[in-house]
Amino acid sequence: MSRDLTVSIDAMGGDAGPGIVVTALARSIVRHPAVRFLIHGDEAVLNPLFAKRPKLLPRIEIRHSAERVRMEEKPSQALRRGRNTSMWRAIECVAKHDADVAISAGNTGALMAMSMYQLGLIEGLDRPAIASLWPTKRGQSVVLDVGANIQSDAQQLVDFAVMGEAFARAILGLERPIVGLLNVGSEDQKGNDAVRGAAHILRGAKLPIEFCGFVEGDDIAEGTVDVVVTDGFTGNIALKTAEGTAKLVIYFLRTALRRSLLGRMGGFVAGGALNALRRKLDPRASNGGIFLGLNAIVVKSHGGTDAMGFASALDMAIDMARADVTAKIAADRAMLAVPETTV
Amino acid sequence: MSRDLTVSIDAMGGDAGPGIVVTALARSIVRHPAVRFLIHGDEAVLNPLFAKRPKLLPRIEIRHSAERVRMEEKPSQALRRGRNTSMWRAIECVAKHDADVAISAGNTGALMAMSMYQLGLIEGLDRPAIASLWPTKRGQSVVLDVGANIQSDAQQLVDFAVMGEAFARAILGLERPIVGLLNVGSEDQKGNDAVRGAAHILRGAKLPIEFCGFVEGDDIAEGTVDVVVTDGFTGNIALKTAEGTAKLVIYFLRTALRRSLLGRMGGFVAGGALNALRRKLDPRASNGGIFLGLNAIVVKSHGGTDAMGFASALDMAIDMARADVTAKIAADRAMLAVPETTV
Repeated sequence: MSRDLTVSIDAMGGDAGPGIVVTALARSIVRHPAVRFLIHGDEAVLNPLFAKRPKLLPRIEIRHSAERVRMEEKPSQALRRGRNTSMWRAIECVAKHDADVAISAGNTGALMAMSMYQLGLIEGLDRPAIASLWPTKRGQSVVLDVGANIQSDAQQLVDFAVMGEAFARAILGLERPIVGLLNVGSEDQKGNDAVRGAAHILRGAKLPIEFCGFVEGDDIAEGTVDVVVTDGFTGNIALKTAEGTAKLVIYFLRTALRRSLLGRMGGFVAGGALNALRRKLDPRASNGGIFLGLNAIVVKSHGGTDAMGFASALDMAIDMARADVTAKIAADRAMLAVPETTV
Repeated sequence: MSRDLTVSIDAMGGDAGPGIVVTALARSIVRHPAVRFLIHGDEAVLNPLFAKRPKLLPRIEIRHSAERVRMEEKPSQALRRGRNTSMWRAIECVAKHDADVAISAGNTGALMAMSMYQLGLIEGLDRPAIASLWPTKRGQSVVLDVGANIQSDAQQLVDFAVMGEAFARAILGLERPIVGLLNVGSEDQKGNDAVRGAAHILRGAKLPIEFCGFVEGDDIAEGTVDVVVTDGFTGNIALKTAEGTAKLVIYFLRTALRRSLLGRMGGFVAGGALNALRRKLDPRASNGGIFLGLNAIVVKSHGGTDAMGFASALDMAIDMARADVTAKIAADRAMLAVPETTV
């Protein structure tokens, strides 16, 4: 069996502990027969867990780390004291080219700080971004940034467009993903300086990007574009507002169904559909944020995820590494940096 | 019958034309027996419509205006050429104290520009805001600003908190509404300068405001707080993202129900519940944005609304005028302006 990829896993992140990682791996080794997994964490905890799953043993390597990053730890603190944590070590393997991609369900801020520090930014980029896959009427779209940055200027938004476009080509399998800038209206004069400036640059840039201008909040769920670009403040609030709204709608529906006998009957019969819907909207299914803009991909699985969620984040990490999204972003960004007169 | 309030209506706004206004009034005159309505628009259109509803005639007064503001018109253009439009005249009646509150389903930007120009801002305020009522798990919450401003500094966010709190007391009937600032995390150090600055001012202010700190996007639907304060860029995108998500969930549910015979049966039986849900989430039901911060209330009904939507926007306008929200905002804002040493 040829080894094509190695995934470096922080097994101690996440609220549920390393048990979900082990269960997720049982699925991943079947789906990805040529992938190797480096498992970082406390071997006193990990060894007994893996001993129960002998099929996993030829495909994994446990690397002991005595400490872990706590969920409530500040990024700066984790960075200072965290060299012996499973999170640091998981990223370190990628930085040292022992592995192709890192994944953790732990503290997002600490993971970003450690990834920035160890992997560094792709040349020409100012800031990384966190991308997220959203379910839409037409399938899935990429939204970024959903929380790596607090505010972004025009050039940073353009960089997010480059990253998101490369991500969409790799993960959604689109040849020319359509990119839109999130704004409060579709007319040219709408929005703040950053979005208007970014639109101006994207319209003039000689990039292989299908830029379609401004889109609005409801265009995300519509699937109007494949890549929705926004600053991390707005993107994070939009993401959480959407999650809250989806939960609310399902809550209302359950309440309405319980209200009448006919409704209760309907609820019973419609139960399957409702469960299918819940799975479709479940944050575990399109789980995780992807850190883009660094010299390797790091995937942040949802902190409250279960084995199924971690397994789908693993799928994403493997797809990203295989498609070499980082190289695509670097190539596009380099193209953007060429002065226009020489093109 | 004593006259307690007069509502000034732009009957020519909205995609559906004045027909929905007439139908909405048929409901409103019953619900609000002591309210009078001034109807602005083209009498050649309005007279025949009202002639068919003789019960309305003693309660309304048609005021002819030859022109109307078009939906695609720029606010600046509407302001320049629009003195003979039904929208201008509807606001003018309020400015001249002929009416207590104005309502229109027309062009939002033009309505805001004309309202600012004719009514002016409450003393001490820099900017108006548009407030919106959101359905939540606990009932309804107020979110503002949802689109009057592109960006806001700390003091403007504080002003929005004052406005939103007065609105919540008046419309949600809460004695001490709980106010939160929308942010990307609940910890003190999170967010941009504007939200952190606003939190600092609100914590120190001697205002009758129950300020609970930062809330996140998913707290809106949870109903964690009664008033969610944010800048108009983020608020507008959050509002439209939520609308899009609600539609998407219902679309997914219908699709899932159609997929199997059992599902189709369930869908048939659950149809009542689904319709109840759609009504609950319908933008027409909690319809309209309320312009706050001006020296009178102006209600913007949804442009694509029907008679039911316009009727509920009318209810809101009447409630707002009766509660004298404008006076409450002015009083709170004046309190905020008093130097701390003299308090």
